[in-house]
Amino acid sequence: MTLNSLDDDLTKRLRAALPDDILRDVEPRYLSEPRDSWPGQAGLVALPRSVDEVAAVVRVAGELRIGIIPYGGGTGLVSGQVMPEGPLPLVLSLERMNKVRAVFPEENVLIAEAGVILADVQAAAEEAGRLFPLSLASEGSCRVGGVLGTNAGGVNVLRYGNARDLCLGLEAVLPDGTIWNGLTRLRKDNTGYDLRNLLVGAEGTLGVITAATLKLVPVPAETGTALLHVASPAAALSLLSLARDQLGEGVSAFELMHRTGFEFLSEALPDLRQPWAQAPEWSVLIDVGLARGLDPQAALAELFEAAAEHELADDGLIAQSRGQAVDFWNMREHIPEANRKIGSIVSNDIALPLGEVAEFIDRAPGALAALGDFRINCFGHLGDGNLHYNIFPQRGATRADYAGVASDVKRVVHDLVQEMGGSFSAEHGVGRAKVGDLERYGDPARLAAMRAIKAALDPLGIMNPGAVLA
Amino acid sequence: MTLNSLDDDLTKRLRAALPDDILRDVEPRYLSEPRDSWPGQAGLVALPRSVDEVAAVVRVAGELRIGIIPYGGGTGLVSGQVMPEGPLPLVLSLERMNKVRAVFPEENVLIAEAGVILADVQAAAEEAGRLFPLSLASEGSCRVGGVLGTNAGGVNVLRYGNARDLCLGLEAVLPDGTIWNGLTRLRKDNTGYDLRNLLVGAEGTLGVITAATLKLVPVPAETGTALLHVASPAAALSLLSLARDQLGEGVSAFELMHRTGFEFLSEALPDLRQPWAQAPEWSVLIDVGLARGLDPQAALAELFEAAAEHELADDGLIAQSRGQAVDFWNMREHIPEANRKIGSIVSNDIALPLGEVAEFIDRAPGALAALGDFRINCFGHLGDGNLHYNIFPQRGATRADYAGVASDVKRVVHDLVQEMGGSFSAEHGVGRAKVGDLERYGDPARLAAMRAIKAALDPLGIMNPGAVLA
Repeated sequence: MTLNSLDDDLTKRLRAALPDDILRDVEPRYLSEPRDSWPGQAGLVALPRSVDEVAAVVRVAGELRIGIIPYGGGTGLVSGQVMPEGPLPLVLSLERMNKVRAVFPEENVLIAEAGVILADVQAAAEEAGRLFPLSLASEGSCRVGGVLGTNAGGVNVLRYGNARDLCLGLEAVLPDGTIWNGLTRLRKDNTGYDLRNLLVGAEGTLGVITAATLKLVPVPAETGTALLHVASPAAALSLLSLARDQLGEGVSAFELMHRTGFEFLSEALPDLRQPWAQAPEWSVLIDVGLARGLDPQAALAELFEAAAEHELADDGLIAQSRGQAVDFWNMREHIPEANRKIGSIVSNDIALPLGEVAEFIDRAPGALAALGDFRINCFGHLGDGNLHYNIFPQRGATRADYAGVASDVKRVVHDLVQEMGGSFSAEHGVGRAKVGDLERYGDPARLAAMRAIKAALDPLGIMNPGAVLA
Repeated sequence: MTLNSLDDDLTKRLRAALPDDILRDVEPRYLSEPRDSWPGQAGLVALPRSVDEVAAVVRVAGELRIGIIPYGGGTGLVSGQVMPEGPLPLVLSLERMNKVRAVFPEENVLIAEAGVILADVQAAAEEAGRLFPLSLASEGSCRVGGVLGTNAGGVNVLRYGNARDLCLGLEAVLPDGTIWNGLTRLRKDNTGYDLRNLLVGAEGTLGVITAATLKLVPVPAETGTALLHVASPAAALSLLSLARDQLGEGVSAFELMHRTGFEFLSEALPDLRQPWAQAPEWSVLIDVGLARGLDPQAALAELFEAAAEHELADDGLIAQSRGQAVDFWNMREHIPEANRKIGSIVSNDIALPLGEVAEFIDRAPGALAALGDFRINCFGHLGDGNLHYNIFPQRGATRADYAGVASDVKRVVHDLVQEMGGSFSAEHGVGRAKVGDLERYGDPARLAAMRAIKAALDPLGIMNPGAVLA
């Protein structure tokens, strides 16, 4: 089914069919993604204020055969929110649906509209004496709808799960313009197909999420942070296992970092405080949040002693104050910024079975060596088997020097990931940037089922055309 | 699309198309469900030994337009596994696919075929020093495929989630006979639509699960059990909140029981040991599993003291031994058996928002009073807002005396549940018994989407015909 391009005539008809103050000329901020690699195109943005207005937009777009790009905070990294080519679409931004509709502290539940910024959800939870544990670099600007549409991850997935795991219910507009009122606060509800999880992670291709029931959790009584030097990625995984044996669910985050990341920080962000003269080759940043009666510093010290005894870790720092913990995390959280300043050839957001992570880190540089001389910044959410495995020019060279090999680099990494049972997209999604990867690496039976579902729910193909499935 | 009835001619053609030892004449055990309310019909059962054989059965059934009833342990309570009427179907039992294919203790992962009995998964996890936390009354006979197909719950959902939350990947045969190889061990994988969660809970209507990657968890270092007398359901909920504030994720189970349950135990199972002369009106059974360094008995004692201070609980027992804990749980787990012996008029498996549970328990007897004089046994997984709200004849009366009002009783309960934002099926599913409830109470937009998905993935309608959707 071919869509129409949003020309002057269709713009007039859209304006005639919808209330005046919903449509605006698009601003540049809607047309670029953070890495700027895929500039989008669009002439109009719709800014509805209610689910009924969203439904009206979707219905009219269907009648006029105009594509819709659902837009959250615009922080996605795979160009799910920008459309570089094809019939000119309508951007549909949820930013005016930005209310926390209700908080139920005794139920550990919060209901937020799709346009609420993630940090505002966290703040509303905190005000109610609860924690909304989803935490990621873009939390100050990403919005609930995008977080769920892309099934966002971040640093606390190990303990609390990803966006999917923190969602109890949805309100959404389906591609035919009908409204699904699914804002349940229920923990159990076995009454048919899991439409919630189908929309979560569908990146706006099966409908528009307009509000969500989110799970809150109790605030851990005591928290602690440690930065430990580990002998190797394999040692880091053994340390994770040890930590979970000792502390159970108390391990909230477990991040692996290679020395390259700290070298990039020194090079690109020299004012950022680093707690060492010489960074260790491999280190892990561990957050624990414990129940009453346990002392996190003592628990982390005990963990370090056991790790040292097993020759997993030989040095490290246990944060002695909240400020020191913030410093440790500042380093971790500024690595992506340093990466952007250095300029990667290829960024990979991959997942591996935990037991394969060390072998992957061991094998990948050899597989890449034939393609050139690179710097590799490998860091990520080790507890989830999720590595940001980013490839950079050697010192003195530039991205342009590697222009010809970027796609081969990506291919070599993804082929190895596939061979080892991994995923070419752990937490960033498919968007438009990885449509080819999904076709190449996806299971054929699953892909056929996905296409059948897309055709069944969105027969006109108006929802985020070209994203996820070509 | 009308299906064919499995007559002699089709039986011959099935036998010709499949290896000899896959098809057998059906035994009575495949044709009844535990409550015996819906006797099924079938002439043949297929017993494949591999995913390829399952695929062959599904393909041939599709060619011959014969309905397939996927069959696990046969323990479902809503007749998803028995078909009382319509064209004679083929039962497809996964019982010969009963291998634990692999265990990855360091990854907290286990891969099991659909025919593995739940207790055998638990045992394999234990052997690897891990816990598979899904636990329910039928764990000695239910099988992995059925557990996932129905998204089973049980007593540890509060802490560890239901079957859905404990599944990382699936191998399945889709309705067109293609095999989806999705046995990933990944914690994060954002590469398109969530087919896993669509099949989980679809009750065999969208495909046949043949194997699953399951999540294991660390074994809590120390466990404890308490049986506390609470002032009311509202007090029980405040106690739950207090427990989670004090112990975080350490609260593994939180079961509410009304005195009626203990009276039924005395009446129907007089030999079962009960730890009191006079049962309290309301009590809760709490399991905790704590990290190293915490003493569960001390933690439970501290919890009780705080509860007493807030007038939430006035008496109780903290198990002093594993044997005593088993005794407490024995009572809870024998309530369903006592119910069966007493003979319910109607059994309801309902969920409510946590904040509405107490009001529901308060209002429901009044709503039912107009229909007759009942005994109500209300018990269940309070931490999940999941009540088994079962209605019995008064002492001296029998089920037959209430034959005329059973459907009205169910309607009154479900109407009130719906009004309060609840679910008519918390953990048992829809099967065939609750198809009418789903039509009555389901969101219309969601139902339309479900029908579109069913038609797209199973256009011939061969997969568990008549279950979930009429």
